[in-house]
Amino acid sequence: MIVLGGSASNGLDITLAKSLGAHVAKIETTKFPDGEIKVRVPKFNDDKVVIVQSTHYPQEKNLFELLLTAYAVKETGAKVCAVVPYLAYARQNQSFNEGEAVSVNAVLDMLHVAGVDSLVVVNPHKSESLERFKGNSCVADAGKTLAKSAKGHLKKPLVLAPDKAALRIAEPAAKILKCDVTYIDKSRDNYGNVTMKKAHGGNFKGKDVIIFDDMIAAGSTIELAARFAYTEGAASVSAAAVHLVMTSGAYERLKSAGVVNIFGTNTVPFEKAQIADVSSDVAACVKKMFK
Amino acid sequence: MIVLGGSASNGLDITLAKSLGAHVAKIETTKFPDGEIKVRVPKFNDDKVVIVQSTHYPQEKNLFELLLTAYAVKETGAKVCAVVPYLAYARQNQSFNEGEAVSVNAVLDMLHVAGVDSLVVVNPHKSESLERFKGNSCVADAGKTLAKSAKGHLKKPLVLAPDKAALRIAEPAAKILKCDVTYIDKSRDNYGNVTMKKAHGGNFKGKDVIIFDDMIAAGSTIELAARFAYTEGAASVSAAAVHLVMTSGAYERLKSAGVVNIFGTNTVPFEKAQIADVSSDVAACVKKMFK
Repeated sequence: MIVLGGSASNGLDITLAKSLGAHVAKIETTKFPDGEIKVRVPKFNDDKVVIVQSTHYPQEKNLFELLLTAYAVKETGAKVCAVVPYLAYARQNQSFNEGEAVSVNAVLDMLHVAGVDSLVVVNPHKSESLERFKGNSCVADAGKTLAKSAKGHLKKPLVLAPDKAALRIAEPAAKILKCDVTYIDKSRDNYGNVTMKKAHGGNFKGKDVIIFDDMIAAGSTIELAARFAYTEGAASVSAAAVHLVMTSGAYERLKSAGVVNIFGTNTVPFEKAQIADVSSDVAACVKKMFK
Repeated sequence: MIVLGGSASNGLDITLAKSLGAHVAKIETTKFPDGEIKVRVPKFNDDKVVIVQSTHYPQEKNLFELLLTAYAVKETGAKVCAVVPYLAYARQNQSFNEGEAVSVNAVLDMLHVAGVDSLVVVNPHKSESLERFKGNSCVADAGKTLAKSAKGHLKKPLVLAPDKAALRIAEPAAKILKCDVTYIDKSRDNYGNVTMKKAHGGNFKGKDVIIFDDMIAAGSTIELAARFAYTEGAASVSAAAVHLVMTSGAYERLKSAGVVNIFGTNTVPFEKAQIADVSSDVAACVKKMFK
């Protein structure tokens, strides 16, 4: 088995190869002055190839590099497993308004046509979205790895899910942090304004609240949750998310709301946080895909 | 029939619709703060849909918008003809070194999987590349349209192909400009250095030389050809290319070599040139595709 790391593998190629006891090599990507890229894969003799390439910003560029790599690897006759730590377009998983394209389907179809036999994604927005993929797929859940990395950083932890859906990741995290978990009852009106009502159960007073979610993009949800937690008497507020997408201004938004620590993983590059390595979660999936 | 114009249709959607006597509408593209896009197509009742979207820089973004549009249109059950005035990655049409991906194949396969039934491309790097596309395809040759737009701008024209391959576009151009045509014998050594030998036939003295090629990217070829023509006694040198890709510094390169006029088409946006509209060439292809 060989692990090929793309330009957006964020070091996961190295740790994953170690975890799998596999060789590792870099994909050679050239960028031309007109903006086009050229992909060349190194020579190898393995018939099982794992390509690691995340699809965070610039999404299409990273995705296209992954597709070209799959094309080049497929030429060798090897079986291709694509590890996409952060899957772009996972939030556009349905036509919310008439005439809208279901973008994630396009991404998944392209991966298949490029020769990807099996697909591993870390905490996609909805696991069901992967059913569209015509090969085998596996969801690597990095929630526990993330929670473990936060352990020891908080004196009197209380896990908070910013909405009910985030309990999916917050509940297992609370077990690891050996503390209570609660969530915020969030409602959105027709103008898109979010109102947060009192947390169900859980006492914030004097607690080191840590907000868990799948991802942080603009950070508005976390900002509101953090302010809410302080209002309810939290001693400190931290934030943890598998995918630290962190669009422009997100970090400042979190800081202004008093978020002390940020925890994330290496599915997306972000320097101002404690970063946990998801290689063991991904390795378990890759092994299944090649069984 | 309806023509849907994408964000990189460069006005060709409007002129093409006029040429075809078809309706025209805009594709609604939203960009999110994280860099992802969302595509929504307007409501229509046509069962023949022409999508116009070029794939110049940013190539992958423009390509992905086209793919999402095709997905959304396909949902309506209509037949989809994609007009890609400038086809990205057409120059990577083979594996020049072992392990290299054939990028243009990836682009063509993606268009097919997205639901594109037929494909129209204006002067692709190699027409044979389109054979890979699993649906029908048509090459629109805008060479004559380009030549016509240069007519009347030159007193004593002489058409020059910067290499033998460019005669493909230079010869028909000379017929339209009613003048002689010649080419430069170009050779490239192992280090990639280009040497230009004397033009075969044709006298440059006092002539208004116009260099014809499929595309201008960095402009180095045109620059050398222009300097060569002046050395041989040209009165003036102009340049004409279907695709004015014009990477950073290309315009300055041409100007420094004394290129007076630049002629191009609306397959790629470029403001500092005389732009010809390729809609009639494209319309002829679209009609064939829907026959």
